[in-house]
Amino acid sequence: MAKTIFGRIAAGEIPCKKVYEDDLVLAFHDVAPQAPTHILVIPKEDVATLNDLGPGHEALAGRMVIIAAKVAKELGLAESGYRLVMNCNEDGGQTVFHVHLHLLGGRAMGWPPG
Amino acid sequence: MAKTIFGRIAAGEIPCKKVYEDDLVLAFHDVAPQAPTHILVIPKEDVATLNDLGPGHEALAGRMVIIAAKVAKELGLAESGYRLVMNCNEDGGQTVFHVHLHLLGGRAMGWPPG
Repeated sequence: MAKTIFGRIAAGEIPCKKVYEDDLVLAFHDVAPQAPTHILVIPKEDVATLNDLGPGHEALAGRMVIIAAKVAKELGLAESGYRLVMNCNEDGGQTVFHVHLHLLGGRAMGWPPG
Repeated sequence: MAKTIFGRIAAGEIPCKKVYEDDLVLAFHDVAPQAPTHILVIPKEDVATLNDLGPGHEALAGRMVIIAAKVAKELGLAESGYRLVMNCNEDGGQTVFHVHLHLLGGRAMGWPPG
């Protein structure tokens, strides 16, 4: 299957405004920000949706959350707060079929979350 | 510090409409649902906010995400889709200071996510 745009970013084929990278994940600024700070955390592994994550992906999914919290701290959002969001398929609003976690901060996020 | 309501639910001191439980996490129906299906996944360990999660919590954070996806499947949301949300502090809209993950599905979630 052809790589998605995030798969190509993870593979280094498309540039991004990177804020963090390690062996498992990559974090970069969203090009269509929905808050003053809007970062995406993606796995380097090509995984289409949350439905494709099994017990063997616990470390990967955990790394995504932990790194989002770490990046939030580094960007000065820890005290004021932030929201993490992951969308799956149409009802979730998923548009790129490479798993990704949104980190949004810098404004008060409303409720419900969409 | 006194336990939060979620800490007390995790400790079995307050009942909940449980959908899943294992050694690390508990999942139950939110009492103020924002979508036809609205589940909370919480760690049994008392952790106040996402800021308190360090590298040692990767397995726990990963379990929360993997179990949310598993519960979504069991509740018939996998194909239609769903959204996972974690809030930190005031801007994130966090109201209970025991880490929790919202699983919302059964309707189209809007964008931005709050």
